[in-house]
Amino acid sequence: MSSKEELAPKLEFIMSEISVCEGLVLAKNNGEVLLGQTITEMDHNSIAKSVSKMFKTKIVALNKGNMSEMTLGLDEGFLIAVKNKNLMVLGFLGSDGKSSVGLLLRQLKNIMK
Amino acid sequence: MSSKEELAPKLEFIMSEISVCEGLVLAKNNGEVLLGQTITEMDHNSIAKSVSKMFKTKIVALNKGNMSEMTLGLDEGFLIAVKNKNLMVLGFLGSDGKSSVGLLLRQLKNIMK
Repeated sequence: MSSKEELAPKLEFIMSEISVCEGLVLAKNNGEVLLGQTITEMDHNSIAKSVSKMFKTKIVALNKGNMSEMTLGLDEGFLIAVKNKNLMVLGFLGSDGKSSVGLLLRQLKNIMK
Repeated sequence: MSSKEELAPKLEFIMSEISVCEGLVLAKNNGEVLLGQTITEMDHNSIAKSVSKMFKTKIVALNKGNMSEMTLGLDEGFLIAVKNKNLMVLGFLGSDGKSSVGLLLRQLKNIMK
């Protein structure tokens, strides 16, 4: 399982490689932020808490196990979240990042393996 | 805004066109199910309630407006949900439906316009 120290340079790399990526946040599954970098100032804790809450939703009746990733489409962009046993990483894209949703999701899944 | 009667044949069409699609559920935004078809018996109401709850999560700090679509990756498949002002439609895929996630999302967005 990757640690904050191991993940930090990988997040830097993704942020520089995907130029439309507006931010990345690494947090514990309970929403406690470990690292965060966004192009505009925003409350990383508040965002991580909301995502943590969403991940906790049980969709038992679907009978497909636990949720490990989410791609949320908003009026003006996208939020991508990938979790593993302990940590979750969030990525933010604006409307101009639509074509990079798949790429960012793959990269976040890769580093959270 | 489309009604249940207008949407029913469109849902039938998607279900038959995307052979890996395991089910579609049309519900009001509060989670009240209007139509549901799944290849195995499951509690559509319970699933729609969970998704309704997730859609209600406000991620205000991200400053990107309201959530209108979600793609959730689970241990054994995917749940796709698209909402408009009054209704939401949910689509279910198994692990074998991974390559159809984008297609199903587009189709659900199309009929919910």
